[in-house]
Parts: sequence; C-alpha cells; structure tokens
Amino acid sequence: MKVLIVGSVAYDTVETAAGRVEYALGGAATYASVAAGFYAEPCLVGVVGEDFEKKHEEFLLSRGVDLSGLQHKPGKTFHWAGRYLPDMIGRETLDTQLNVFETFDPVLPGPLDSLEYVFLANIHPSLQKRVLDQARNPRLIVLDTMDLWINTAKAELEELFPRVDVLVINDEEARMLTGEYNILRGGEMLLQRVKKAVIVKRGEHGSTLLTKEGMFVAPAYPVKDLVDPTGAGDSFAGALIGWLARNGDLTLSGLKSALVRGAALASFTVEGFSMDRLRKISAENVEQRVRELKALVAFE
Amino acid sequence: MKVLIVGSVAYDTVETAAGRVEYALGGAATYASVAAGFYAEPCLVGVVGEDFEKKHEEFLLSRGVDLSGLQHKPGKTFHWAGRYLPDMIGRETLDTQLNVFETFDPVLPGPLDSLEYVFLANIHPSLQKRVLDQARNPRLIVLDTMDLWINTAKAELEELFPRVDVLVINDEEARMLTGEYNILRGGEMLLQRVKKAVIVKRGEHGSTLLTKEGMFVAPAYPVKDLVDPTGAGDSFAGALIGWLARNGDLTLSGLKSALVRGAALASFTVEGFSMDRLRKISAENVEQRVRELKALVAFE
Repeated sequence: MKVLIVGSVAYDTVETAAGRVEYALGGAATYASVAAGFYAEPCLVGVVGEDFEKKHEEFLLSRGVDLSGLQHKPGKTFHWAGRYLPDMIGRETLDTQLNVFETFDPVLPGPLDSLEYVFLANIHPSLQKRVLDQARNPRLIVLDTMDLWINTAKAELEELFPRVDVLVINDEEARMLTGEYNILRGGEMLLQRVKKAVIVKRGEHGSTLLTKEGMFVAPAYPVKDLVDPTGAGDSFAGALIGWLARNGDLTLSGLKSALVRGAALASFTVEGFSMDRLRKISAENVEQRVRELKALVAFE
Repeated sequence: MKVLIVGSVAYDTVETAAGRVEYALGGAATYASVAAGFYAEPCLVGVVGEDFEKKHEEFLLSRGVDLSGLQHKPGKTFHWAGRYLPDMIGRETLDTQLNVFETFDPVLPGPLDSLEYVFLANIHPSLQKRVLDQARNPRLIVLDTMDLWINTAKAELEELFPRVDVLVINDEEARMLTGEYNILRGGEMLLQRVKKAVIVKRGEHGSTLLTKEGMFVAPAYPVKDLVDPTGAGDSFAGALIGWLARNGDLTLSGLKSALVRGAALASFTVEGFSMDRLRKISAENVEQRVRELKALVAFE
C-alpha cells in the first residue's frame, strides 16, 4: 500500500553528548519515509537543492521510497544545525537555512493525489492545507506539527484539525494548544477537534493514544545508548502510518499495534546519527523490540 | 503479615490549583501506613505532639495500623506548608515546623524490632540507619528518600544502600545521585549498589523497576481530576511493601504485581487532599484500577 508523506528533506548538522555530524541526511519527511518503508511504499513529496547528493536518493530508493514527488530546485537544500542539551531532550537551534525549502510548494504529481494514506509531516500549516486540498481520496490523514507553528500560525493549524484523522503531538505542544497541564485532559480536548485519534508523544516516557473507542499507553523502548534524538518523532509517525497502511485496521486495536511499531522503530533511530541505525536494521529487528516492549509491561 | 513503617507523621497545609487544606493529616509514614493497610498490618513508628487529634489515631486504628510505636511528645506535631505550581509537579515549601520531629528517635518498641518487612520512609538517613541497626530479622528493606537528603547527607544515605533491598526514588533524585540523565543507565548504576531492586518513580508517567532478573515499566493510572499530589510516592511505596508482605513473593513477578498496586493506590491518593480519597475506597477499588491498567497497556 502506498503512503503519501509530505514534509522537509534536509541536511542536518547535529551535536549531542555522543558526538557530532555535519550535513547528514535529515528532514521530517525523510525520516518518516524511511520508517514507513519498513511496512509500506512511501511516496515522498519534498524539495531538495543542487547540493543534494545522489547517494541519498539511491538510499531512499533502496528503501522502497517513491521519489516521483521529490522536487529538485536551483539552490541549496534546507540546512538545520542544532545542539542537544546534556539531557538529550532540550535543544538549541544554531542555524536554520531554509534555502529551497523557503518557496516549497507541495504539488502532488500524477497519481499521488489519490493516495489513501497521507502523512503531513511537520511543515507550515498552510503547506499542510495545500496538500489536504489536493488529496482526492484520503482514508487516513495523520498530521504532525511543532511548537514553532503553534506560536506563529496557530489559527491556520487549528483550522486543519477537523480534516485530520490522527493528530500526533508531544506533551509540551498539547499544553501549548490547550492550556492544560494534565495530558489526559489536554488530549481529550484535542480529541474533540479531530476525526479519530490524538497521540501525545512523551519522549523517553512513551506515548499516549486517545480515541473515541478508548485509550492506550505505549512505553518507550528503553534505550541505553542514546546518540541523537533527531528524527525520533518523525520515524515514530512514519512507522505508524506505514503499519496502518499495510494492515488497513484503523480500529483502536489496529492503532495500538501501529503505535508500538512506531515506538520500536524510533528507538533505533535515536541509537545513531541521521539514518545510520535505520540503515542496518530489518522489520524483524523491529518486531523483536515489539516483543520486548510487550514483556516489559506485562504483569499479573 | 506485619510491616514496619518508620517516618514522619505530620500536619500539612497544602495549596493546589484545586483548593487548599489547613492542618490536614499528612506525613510519609502516615500515607504509607494507610496504603500498606490495604494488604497487611502496618506498624507505624513516628512521633506526634500534644496537638495530634484523637480522631486521626482512631482513623489509623480503623485502618488496621498498629500504633504501639507512635511516640507522643510534649510540643507540637511536625507541620509542613506548601503550594503546588500549576503543573502539579513543582512545589514550593512555604513553612516547615519540625517541632517534636526535630528530636525524633525511632526506637522500635517490643516486638517491632523483629518484623521482616521494613519500610524506611523519607526521613534523615541517620534515622533510617538507626532503624536498620535495630531490625533483627529483616527479609525486605525498602528505602525512600528525597532531594533534601541527597543534597545535605549524601554520604550517610549512600552508606545505607548495601543494606537496602529495594530503593525507591524519583527520576530527578536518580539523576542527582548518579549524574546520569538516562533513567535506564542511572537506574542500573543504582541497582549495582543495592541488594535487589531499584524503582524509579516518574510521576504522571509511571515508574520503572530494575532488578537483576529483568525490568518492568508500570504506567501511571491516568488521573483526570488531580487534586493534591502530596503523599503519592508514600502511598505508592506503602502499597508496594504491604502487597509484598501479604504475598511473600519477592521475585520479579511479585515485584511487578506490587508496583502496579502501588500505582493504582497512589492514583486515588492524588484525587483528594490528605487521606480524603483513601478513606473512601476498598482494596476492590484498587483491583479495579489494576485491571484498567492492564487493559491500558495491552496490545497485539
């Protein structure tokens, strides 16, 4: 099953307690596509500049990512540079060069406008809207966002909620949107505003799924060697929608299974810089961690 | 089965977003005893002043708490006044009157020195040591502490670790003790220093159990109407040791069951001020939440 994934493709320069990489492959849509590729056929819509290396496209193609929607523009690829604080949660942005991303227009070419599974990765809400307006046949729309858009484009973002099936946000963003400190209360307020489900990501503490059918608490896979948190949320959401597209089960039970695959896959992402760790694992490695997660929460 | 519980008995004046109480029954040993009383026979060792009301003793007795170790001294009962921040996590202490607690000497009267299950609630490590030195027949020693003692009596606290079976601390305290931000790494470092297990409390995110046999992640019961977080950790630990004393199963499986009872019971504690909510519930109410917790983390 094909999955439409729209968002940023980037070069990341990242510094963490574990080391540093320069101009490594990054971007929300990239992480999400690689993750979704474990279960489905991701169709990536994004933009890159002339400096985007062939080897990265080859890697994405090797992971089954359809690049017919990847635009090539004169100029440079979006570049983000940041440094994580020692807690590996807080981070400071050192530099942001939007480059070709500044004028990105997410046009869905050819058959991509009829895909049923759509992931709107973290980009400006006006661009997310542009994609929604083109999607002719959506069965499941998953939307991610970030604090920047809540601060600068809240009205535009909130306008999209009634068209979204699954909203994926972190606990801090949920608080910003609702004014509620209590995850459950905030999550339920947001649930009233979307079609199907809200997933509140709680970093190392896991995630909470709220649906009209009931809720679910997914643990995070315990990672001892955290190298770089970049892309954790994107690969979580990518694996989630990939799993849902493959299985087609959008009930609470299906969403739970998808959430756990997202958690397991994201645990690999953070064990390396960029896509380093994801390059080396298989869907069976992910399933192994899913089994471990199951054992981790089992009790009598 | 009897459980020795040593710690503070207090009057609390507490202000939260949900309201305010003055001179309400509080104290770590009090909360822990009431919680342990759901499963075992707690023997409370603490000290109160002349202002300690008869009705509180009657309440404790009605909950099966043995008060033969409760000392009555001239003067006033320990009084703590504090205010919780809107996030219901941070808090500021407005006033601390140690009163009779200042010279508290935890002498174990009569047969209490031969109890097998011992909970050292959060008091100065030198007092915890005093209890350990008197315990003639311990099968399970559970120790709780707080940031104050890590800051002011770290060496004395750490000296106790090799004598402790189960260390109960929160994530922030684990970081203070180990310098590790990663809960898993910090927890494992602490596990090397105690006899059996480390439980890292993560507030609204649940708790993590580390043992030499394996680990376990317990969710927190999702509480929508958080009234007063005071006593959550104490009642968590009290229910834990009460359950362990009743069942005698100190394997990983037994510890998991105990942890979940602690989580369920603590979720009631925070739904009211002081012991208000605990007064109104039964062990069956706790089991109901345990079943809900099980459903909350189940997935395929």
